[in-house]
Amino acid sequence: MIPKSHPRYESLLLRDKIVKASKDGYLADSAMIAHGRGEAFDYLIGERTTYPAKRAMYAGVATMLLSKNPVISVNGNTTALAIDEIIKFAKTVNAKIEINLFYRTDKRVKLISELYKNHGYLNILGSLDDEIKYLNEIKNLRATASKNGIYSADTILIPLEDGDRAEILKKSGKNIITIDLNPLSRTSKMSNISIMDNIVRAIPFMTKIAKDLKTQDKKVLIEMINDFDNKDNLKESLEQIKLNN
Amino acid sequence: MIPKSHPRYESLLLRDKIVKASKDGYLADSAMIAHGRGEAFDYLIGERTTYPAKRAMYAGVATMLLSKNPVISVNGNTTALAIDEIIKFAKTVNAKIEINLFYRTDKRVKLISELYKNHGYLNILGSLDDEIKYLNEIKNLRATASKNGIYSADTILIPLEDGDRAEILKKSGKNIITIDLNPLSRTSKMSNISIMDNIVRAIPFMTKIAKDLKTQDKKVLIEMINDFDNKDNLKESLEQIKLNN
Repeated sequence: MIPKSHPRYESLLLRDKIVKASKDGYLADSAMIAHGRGEAFDYLIGERTTYPAKRAMYAGVATMLLSKNPVISVNGNTTALAIDEIIKFAKTVNAKIEINLFYRTDKRVKLISELYKNHGYLNILGSLDDEIKYLNEIKNLRATASKNGIYSADTILIPLEDGDRAEILKKSGKNIITIDLNPLSRTSKMSNISIMDNIVRAIPFMTKIAKDLKTQDKKVLIEMINDFDNKDNLKESLEQIKLNN
Repeated sequence: MIPKSHPRYESLLLRDKIVKASKDGYLADSAMIAHGRGEAFDYLIGERTTYPAKRAMYAGVATMLLSKNPVISVNGNTTALAIDEIIKFAKTVNAKIEINLFYRTDKRVKLISELYKNHGYLNILGSLDDEIKYLNEIKNLRATASKNGIYSADTILIPLEDGDRAEILKKSGKNIITIDLNPLSRTSKMSNISIMDNIVRAIPFMTKIAKDLKTQDKKVLIEMINDFDNKDNLKESLEQIKLNN
């Protein structure tokens, strides 16, 4: 038990979730290392949702609402940190959820599928009984995608995605939205819309945004997307890193 | 196997060492997360040894050479990343090596002791058959120290040390030298000399420095230590973080 008075209490709670997920066996070997990198960047932005992140969330949610087949890609870390938040968001924006693992193994896919079922979400894509195709004809486990999900999606939200995998997805010509605490990562640089935030803060905030944007005229959403410049926004995101706190 | 052409090759090699150590069972549950945090900071300083880090290394090595009982504290991560480099450095500065774990368990102590023996270092302190005392009368596993090692040391080098543990060591009144990639960490702020660098680069460099300083007059070493201001140096270290690379 972490005492609430500990200076790093919130961060340690998330760490515990990741350690538990690792023991449960559904994380990749280096997933905890990835979490640590995120911790460091979150620390540097003061563990708060910045204005550039919010702007990117508005553009991202607007894009998802205007898409024909938006898919949320989930891996072990996303599941460990924010499974219920992801399910709620998916329902709000009418997006599918697909298990999409950089190190895809039957065991991990099975465990993650079961978790979504246990949390009340029954139609998870990318599970063992789903039809899996290969993106860009790359016959590699890293290029797998569900036929009715990422393979045929026009927009994909890829939180905490590996750079190599993001590159494959990008080359498939889809709209890529990422949530990544490192504004310098290959995934952030490669995406159409990059949200520099912790997913445990970002996903609930995006659900709120979605509820708002669903009441707006389509034109407003289109304008929101057109006004957004990811390169500029990443630059502003970077400026949010405070080195003298 | 990581292809040498991968943009993150060197970093991925270290990551593999940590993953292997975790599988071997001698890392703490959250050790991989700590490694990830280090990765992020190393990335931000361009994965190079900066000038402020070098200056801190000179002051640190000089302090160790002038100490009566300098001890190098090692944990699972240090061992996984740089066991041979640590042994070589210890011999060069005539320091003892002590196993000093934040989450001390007999299993981890035993595995790490064996590793040092297998790597030719026979007199490791803090092992299961060593006499363990408690620092500052704190009857807590986190306050343990070998009677002939940290407990009676005047100077301790604590690479990759946890903030809570660093605090206990600091309160014991010893000279504290740390190697920590996060210049904002509690450990960095608390230490007398803080080296912001990756241990795989720092330890071999410190061995070279030691060979040089051993040929110098004591006065030169004392001046080097007196000229060093850790607060200023940490500030300069922080300025080395490049956000626009």
